[in-house]
Amino acid sequence: METDTISAISTPMGEGAIAIVRLSGPEAVEIASGIFKGKDLNEVDSHTIHYGKLVDPRTDELVEEVMVSVMRAPKTFTREDIVEINCHGGMVSVNRVLELVLGNGARMAEPGEFTKRAFMNGRIDLSQAEAVMDLIRAKTDRAMNVAMKQIDGRLSKMIQDLRQDLLQSLASVEVNIDYPEYDDVEEMTNELMLTNTKKVHAEIERLLQTAQQGKILREGLGTAIVGRPNVGKSSLMNTLVHENKAIVTDVPGTTRDVIEEYVNVRGVPLRLIDTAGIRETEDLVEKIGVERSRQVLKEADLILLVMNYGDEITEEDEKLFEIVRDLDTIIILNKTDLQKKINTERLREIAGDAPIVSTSLIKEEGIDELEDSIKDIFFEGELDTGDMTYVSNVRHIQLLNQAKSALEDAMNSMEMGMPIDLVQIDVTRTWEILGEIVGDTVGDSLIDQLFSQFCLGK
Amino acid sequence: METDTISAISTPMGEGAIAIVRLSGPEAVEIASGIFKGKDLNEVDSHTIHYGKLVDPRTDELVEEVMVSVMRAPKTFTREDIVEINCHGGMVSVNRVLELVLGNGARMAEPGEFTKRAFMNGRIDLSQAEAVMDLIRAKTDRAMNVAMKQIDGRLSKMIQDLRQDLLQSLASVEVNIDYPEYDDVEEMTNELMLTNTKKVHAEIERLLQTAQQGKILREGLGTAIVGRPNVGKSSLMNTLVHENKAIVTDVPGTTRDVIEEYVNVRGVPLRLIDTAGIRETEDLVEKIGVERSRQVLKEADLILLVMNYGDEITEEDEKLFEIVRDLDTIIILNKTDLQKKINTERLREIAGDAPIVSTSLIKEEGIDELEDSIKDIFFEGELDTGDMTYVSNVRHIQLLNQAKSALEDAMNSMEMGMPIDLVQIDVTRTWEILGEIVGDTVGDSLIDQLFSQFCLGK
Repeated sequence: METDTISAISTPMGEGAIAIVRLSGPEAVEIASGIFKGKDLNEVDSHTIHYGKLVDPRTDELVEEVMVSVMRAPKTFTREDIVEINCHGGMVSVNRVLELVLGNGARMAEPGEFTKRAFMNGRIDLSQAEAVMDLIRAKTDRAMNVAMKQIDGRLSKMIQDLRQDLLQSLASVEVNIDYPEYDDVEEMTNELMLTNTKKVHAEIERLLQTAQQGKILREGLGTAIVGRPNVGKSSLMNTLVHENKAIVTDVPGTTRDVIEEYVNVRGVPLRLIDTAGIRETEDLVEKIGVERSRQVLKEADLILLVMNYGDEITEEDEKLFEIVRDLDTIIILNKTDLQKKINTERLREIAGDAPIVSTSLIKEEGIDELEDSIKDIFFEGELDTGDMTYVSNVRHIQLLNQAKSALEDAMNSMEMGMPIDLVQIDVTRTWEILGEIVGDTVGDSLIDQLFSQFCLGK
Repeated sequence: METDTISAISTPMGEGAIAIVRLSGPEAVEIASGIFKGKDLNEVDSHTIHYGKLVDPRTDELVEEVMVSVMRAPKTFTREDIVEINCHGGMVSVNRVLELVLGNGARMAEPGEFTKRAFMNGRIDLSQAEAVMDLIRAKTDRAMNVAMKQIDGRLSKMIQDLRQDLLQSLASVEVNIDYPEYDDVEEMTNELMLTNTKKVHAEIERLLQTAQQGKILREGLGTAIVGRPNVGKSSLMNTLVHENKAIVTDVPGTTRDVIEEYVNVRGVPLRLIDTAGIRETEDLVEKIGVERSRQVLKEADLILLVMNYGDEITEEDEKLFEIVRDLDTIIILNKTDLQKKINTERLREIAGDAPIVSTSLIKEEGIDELEDSIKDIFFEGELDTGDMTYVSNVRHIQLLNQAKSALEDAMNSMEMGMPIDLVQIDVTRTWEILGEIVGDTVGDSLIDQLFSQFCLGK
């Protein structure tokens, strides 16, 4: 494949210690060598680093003090020759280096073009390429894990295995069509087809079940803490934040705001929503009214409704229960250290299906049960081994849904005793749809569109 | 020197293709090797790059896909072992890598600590270290050039040469004191001392003369274009922007706002000030009044006052001239293509010392003269060869002023025939003050304070 040499700034914009200008393509090393003073980069070994100065060959002017990494194809990200120029961070510096490179034979890369080349040259498939961007945009550790596993090829392998199963069935149909004289082949074919189709269908359903979780892992489980004044909302917030490792720990240079919002409860990333400043106002319903509260709380994936064990159920409590009726809610019956005043029968009645957890946050009692309860609501009882492959990408979810419905068409046809070559059409379609996930069967325009959403320099 | 191993994120914060976590210190390679899966980094050659995966040794969990650069002392930025871990850009990813490194033996670096180690280990002096930060913060090409030359050690060499001259004089004073029996030594000493002192004094004065320019090169020459409506202010703005290379060219990913504000006129960086929205209002004085105009224009380093050749001098023009009287101003007598109506004698009179350049922007006439005029005002007739060393750092300027005045004390003492050992005190003081610029004679607290202003990871 004939390609040109592309270049872009690969580090985020802004002031920093180091910035990287990356080149990829057949001329990468020669272009870099032409502006590098110190040694002939054409002569150096692959995967080596060289200190030197960049000099504009037209003016002989010193441009920058740099470290240049030379990596030769095929053992590179793009499977092309790659040169990375590490220069001093700062807008002017990195832009001048880029200009110099562009002025000496490189072309400005499109967004995502490095990753696109990695895909076009067969180093990664489409789902892996998409995971690269997910990883960069990941907001939580677990979201990053999901992306990392996808980059590592776990989803790709799963999808390719399913396609292989389908292909095997299709191949035996071919045998059947080519040698119709063998009756038992037909029977075997039908049986194999049905078995494989069911197996693949079950597997796709299982993957789709991870989709909701996958999306939440990407974005965090939006969690609102509500309740009347003085029931212990702030204590609950503090308990969740302090008992659990914050997902992004307090490392200098990261934004503190972001950190405090995320807590990791038994592997579930809670994004604590400051519901209309609820932490300050202490009284959601009174301040913003029932209707508006309902709207605000609808944005949450999980409501933690805190009640006071040592107080009666008030009209205000009843209003709150009404508001959260159809939302995923956990009732926290706090202050069990006080004398009981609450009517637990009535509470059970208005709580509906919502689980009730008794706690004394002040005595640190009931916190384990609460965290179990949060985990159960999220994982629906299924234990996360940390080793699961999640589908989190909307494109993948859509394609899996299409594949599932195509397979159901095939299964229906088989049950209705339709000829096997009709079934074959639906199975082939499924095979193609699954191929779109990994990029085996996608058109150029989709590829262009996907990569254009990438950031520059990737 | 016993040191620990430090680590920090060295790329700007934000989403990007690549982020770097840097380690420096005796354990750098071993720490990296302990979390790197693929090969033993302790065994690899210096200045080589290795693809692999980071794995948390406690949980065996895959953390990231990385490229690791191993650079062994002493040929590194800090003169210690350095490892750079290039991971996928993105807040979570880079923070996790940093956490992993910190959890396995590295300490979080202080701001500027890498550069501080480069200084402490003698790879660069203090003025070079300071230039590193100037380079990162540079807003224009020329500001970057000034910083780059300083990093390259030109200022350091100049300062060290001056100190060497002073030291030579001081040494001969010692000889004089040790062997007072030789009369001719005393005479020679006095003569050498006076010659050297004068030479160093002249050189310091020359350096201080570059300081104003150096500061402007760092920040750009704030330039305001003023004049009555329809004299051609917008045309002038467009001419300056289009005739000259914008300092930061239009590269995707850079901010367009920044680009348009800076133009490079014959090597002078003009920062075009949008004086109270003057481009829109077209009439500064009328809109914001004389006093306020004066205040606004005082912030400019250069005023370009545009007049209409085809119109008489109005009361408003006279007001404008009054406002800019004490400011660096160039009068642009535009529209020379029209029939002359202006009274040039009166114009010369109210213009005072300000140069007057005749132009017809519409016919593209007089633009060369205008640009010469801008260059002259900035360089004060002196041609910039691009090879000059500028002093731009406020700390350096202050120290040079102190050195100059200490030398003047010495010269006065000599002229007054004071004993040479009294002169010696002032010269020694000068030698010490100059030493503070390059960091030979500074205290720990100053060093700590200077480096604390650096960005993290540098």
